[in-house]
Amino acid sequence: MEKPSPPISDPLLDKPLAGWRLRLYTIIFEADTRAGRLFDQALIAVILLSIAVVMADSVQAVRLVYGHALTYAEWVFTLLFTVEYIARLLCVRRPLRYATSFFGIIDLLAVLPTYLALFVPELHALIDVRVLRLLRVFRVFKLAAYVAEYQFLVSALAASGRKILVFLSAVLMVVLVMGTMMYVVEGQTNGFTSIPTSVYWAISTVTTVGFGDITPKTDLGRLIASFMMLMGWGILAVPTGIVTAEMAAQRRTHSGQAPTTRTCHECLTEGHAADANFCFNCGARLPPYQQQAGKAS
Amino acid sequence: MEKPSPPISDPLLDKPLAGWRLRLYTIIFEADTRAGRLFDQALIAVILLSIAVVMADSVQAVRLVYGHALTYAEWVFTLLFTVEYIARLLCVRRPLRYATSFFGIIDLLAVLPTYLALFVPELHALIDVRVLRLLRVFRVFKLAAYVAEYQFLVSALAASGRKILVFLSAVLMVVLVMGTMMYVVEGQTNGFTSIPTSVYWAISTVTTVGFGDITPKTDLGRLIASFMMLMGWGILAVPTGIVTAEMAAQRRTHSGQAPTTRTCHECLTEGHAADANFCFNCGARLPPYQQQAGKAS
Amino acid sequence: MEKPSPPISDPLLDKPLAGWRLRLYTIIFEADTRAGRLFDQALIAVILLSIAVVMADSVQAVRLVYGHALTYAEWVFTLLFTVEYIARLLCVRRPLRYATSFFGIIDLLAVLPTYLALFVPELHALIDVRVLRLLRVFRVFKLAAYVAEYQFLVSALAASGRKILVFLSAVLMVVLVMGTMMYVVEGQTNGFTSIPTSVYWAISTVTTVGFGDITPKTDLGRLIASFMMLMGWGILAVPTGIVTAEMAAQRRTHSGQAPTTRTCHECLTEGHAADANFCFNCGARLPPYQQQAGKAS
Amino acid sequence: MEKPSPPISDPLLDKPLAGWRLRLYTIIFEADTRAGRLFDQALIAVILLSIAVVMADSVQAVRLVYGHALTYAEWVFTLLFTVEYIARLLCVRRPLRYATSFFGIIDLLAVLPTYLALFVPELHALIDVRVLRLLRVFRVFKLAAYVAEYQFLVSALAASGRKILVFLSAVLMVVLVMGTMMYVVEGQTNGFTSIPTSVYWAISTVTTVGFGDITPKTDLGRLIASFMMLMGWGILAVPTGIVTAEMAAQRRTHSGQAPTTRTCHECLTEGHAADANFCFNCGARLPPYQQQAGKAS
Repeated sequence: MEKPSPPISDPLLDKPLAGWRLRLYTIIFEADTRAGRLFDQALIAVILLSIAVVMADSVQAVRLVYGHALTYAEWVFTLLFTVEYIARLLCVRRPLRYATSFFGIIDLLAVLPTYLALFVPELHALIDVRVLRLLRVFRVFKLAAYVAEYQFLVSALAASGRKILVFLSAVLMVVLVMGTMMYVVEGQTNGFTSIPTSVYWAISTVTTVGFGDITPKTDLGRLIASFMMLMGWGILAVPTGIVTAEMAAQRRTHSGQAPTTRTCHECLTEGHAADANFCFNCGARLPPYQQQAGKAS
Repeated sequence: MEKPSPPISDPLLDKPLAGWRLRLYTIIFEADTRAGRLFDQALIAVILLSIAVVMADSVQAVRLVYGHALTYAEWVFTLLFTVEYIARLLCVRRPLRYATSFFGIIDLLAVLPTYLALFVPELHALIDVRVLRLLRVFRVFKLAAYVAEYQFLVSALAASGRKILVFLSAVLMVVLVMGTMMYVVEGQTNGFTSIPTSVYWAISTVTTVGFGDITPKTDLGRLIASFMMLMGWGILAVPTGIVTAEMAAQRRTHSGQAPTTRTCHECLTEGHAADANFCFNCGARLPPYQQQAGKAS
Repeated sequence: MEKPSPPISDPLLDKPLAGWRLRLYTIIFEADTRAGRLFDQALIAVILLSIAVVMADSVQAVRLVYGHALTYAEWVFTLLFTVEYIARLLCVRRPLRYATSFFGIIDLLAVLPTYLALFVPELHALIDVRVLRLLRVFRVFKLAAYVAEYQFLVSALAASGRKILVFLSAVLMVVLVMGTMMYVVEGQTNGFTSIPTSVYWAISTVTTVGFGDITPKTDLGRLIASFMMLMGWGILAVPTGIVTAEMAAQRRTHSGQAPTTRTCHECLTEGHAADANFCFNCGARLPPYQQQAGKAS
Repeated sequence: MEKPSPPISDPLLDKPLAGWRLRLYTIIFEADTRAGRLFDQALIAVILLSIAVVMADSVQAVRLVYGHALTYAEWVFTLLFTVEYIARLLCVRRPLRYATSFFGIIDLLAVLPTYLALFVPELHALIDVRVLRLLRVFRVFKLAAYVAEYQFLVSALAASGRKILVFLSAVLMVVLVMGTMMYVVEGQTNGFTSIPTSVYWAISTVTTVGFGDITPKTDLGRLIASFMMLMGWGILAVPTGIVTAEMAAQRRTHSGQAPTTRTCHECLTEGHAADANFCFNCGARLPPYQQQAGKAS
């Protein structure tokens, strides 16, 4: 890879973060200082509370009694998230890049539905997208020892990904053929009303879920179903074998590195080493690392 | 193994493929040239479309609205597949051998039902056999890096096959005894109407599918069912253990070889090495390898 | 272990098998000669047929049409098995020892019900015990390469047995506590009518079978059930891990030995090496080994 | 670790156990002498019997017939447990420490409900807490070879615990998002009446339990469910992989140590080595070890 030239284009954007913007940035986007960690912990607590409110609001009995309080709480949370969203936009060097990033879109989607529901009540249910913000939970865990485990899981799964994809495509073909067969054999009177429905049934059977909302009634159908269940049992072993073999291999080569939440001001990549000077993703110069003195190991 | 003598018997058949037949053969049967790969990709797209049409046609609500368009599309696909089938017959050296091969029969079965349904409408459902043509999907993936994973999975499963067979025969015996026991214990009033039905239930229980269309009602039946579930749980570990141990062993000895889709003109075996001169299956001389210049790794 | 003195007690019994008794013994009890193998294969075919008859007889629709033919076939099979049972008694040196062995009892149970059903019709269903005779299937497979796989599975499971027992006892305790909890929480109106029933439900939940005949209806019950399902998912990994680790270990140390079906005339132990002179179980002198010349590998 | 100073504070408590108190202590709390083992075995038998009585009492049909006998038996067991609880309090050096320990609380909870039910009948069901006393079962197994297996399982699970926690938190997030999605898609007419209920359904689907009390009815809902089942199947491999890899690693480093049930008189920690002089937990001097002469290996 060629070392990218420092992205100096816009004098306004290129100005390094400083003063209150740098402090805000360090608090909101990173979690290695005391304030940054407190902010993230508070954020997670508020997200969890907000989800609890949405969940409680969906229960008929609760809504009848506490409906007004829940609506009030929802507005408080929405305003909090709005303020946070604006603060995030203010303190990054390239607001547009943040706004179009994965977390930027989720942050926007977390506040939009409440406002839109004023005009289009049907959109109210979309508030639940908010739960995706919880993905930030791992940010905080990053500081704890959990991150090594998390990285271990992710890398083992990523290494197995291609094998699992091949495996899934084979399973999908089996499920298609089997579903069609059951559609022909069982006919439309026993719940196998269409091929998509039969495929849905076949998936629920091969994966050993077995809802039982649709079940074969004819002897031939039950024979095919028995065969599918035994087959599903046998090949259930395949993804397990893939992941296990991968994990056993990872165990041997895995060297745990202590990661940080240091974030590039330019492209918002996380995980820069404490002594790094340039972003490993976009090559921009990193500001000095702000770390908590007595950091919990 | 003795080196087989070159199969020179019929002067007509023995004439090596040349001219348009060779070009057609390379396009249709192999996938290492640009044209061959495009053909296979187009074929897969058409097969997928055709399956989508068959699936959509099986949904009552869709058929009522788009019935005519779907029937029309089905005929177009059938004609396309017919032309392709004839082209395949024309360009192979031994048409009969292709026609009686696994894929040859599937290719025929993919077009027959539509024609036969003109005379015997009940046969219409058989069109769905067409989905089996999707097995060719792996041909195209063969060029990609997926083939190493695919071979890894297949060889691990093949190596475990005998163990799994022994295991399955033991499970079948358990399921037979247990099913009979439940038939005797639960009697015919609780859904266990016959021994085959009870065995179907036993399989769904031991494999942890558990549809719930038939369930024990008596205390003794539930005790036996509880025992079966725990046992099923315990031995669920066996196929997983087999495959996992096999995969871990394969990982160590597996050396990835880049395979091709080069196909023997004589016996239609695939996967000959790029520098091979004779078919490793029937010993016939292979034509020069036609490969795309800038092949994607 | 001390080398046991040769069990010379009864001059009649101690007389080594010879003449027709030895030939019959070799045919019926061993499977390494041509005749012995043919006998075992025929026996398995007859057992399978006999089970098919019992299964078909249990289906209402079949019994109405072919009832008489099935009853006739059942009597033929019963007579065949009776003759075989008497032949087995005749050719062993110690008939009582055979009659009280595991297979001896099963062989008797396989013929008794049909006779007893003449006097007590209710006993008819017991004929199904006959399926247990199929356990002899492994005798024939023993000659094939399947026996190594079989021994591998059995030894891996035996080595894991103690761990799985500890694990199962822990699971049973969890299931007892959880079942009682659900009995208290859900009450008797939602199907959790007694603690045994609740434990049955808890087992079906923890093992991920999930019949759905009994399901929690209250919010607290569903919370507990959700917790149980996640827990069951987590600990589902334990038996798999046990067996897999055991199998991986066995793979390394396992040395496949070609076993025989050579059977001790004294204590009916199987699997003596082809060049053994004394039974490894009771120390009795083994007769010369009778093996098929061109034995299939 | 600093060697703690001997906890000499109260002259009464500090007096080492002697005479009948020491003998009682050795019998009740330890299980390495003949009497101690007999006591534990009897205790387990009584607990099992007591649970059987509670279970039988919950079955309507049994209660109607044997109701009085069961109530009588329950009182006998309760009195036995009460006597045992008092004996335990008497013979330990620090009764309060025992009373507030895990097993101390369970021992109290095992007897309280029967007495309280005299005044508040609703508390009767709480007797079932008694089953938790069965956790002592492992005490007796400790003497047998089972303890090595038990320690192996526990240490493998403990080592995997953090990975499984990270994994479970990811699963919970997935289940929350999926449950909410199904609540929006399926609406309240198909059983997905609230978000908590939908999450309960999502957990039962991802864990492949699949009760079938709530099932998707719309095509979109079934599509999402199919996706969830396949995903659940794929990630079912993760905990298995974690535990298996851990167990395989443990196998290599695990050195089986013969443990005892020798218990510190001060802090009630178990498992002190036979030749230890001080408690490894609180540093108190251990009394001489009382072991059975011909101890079963």
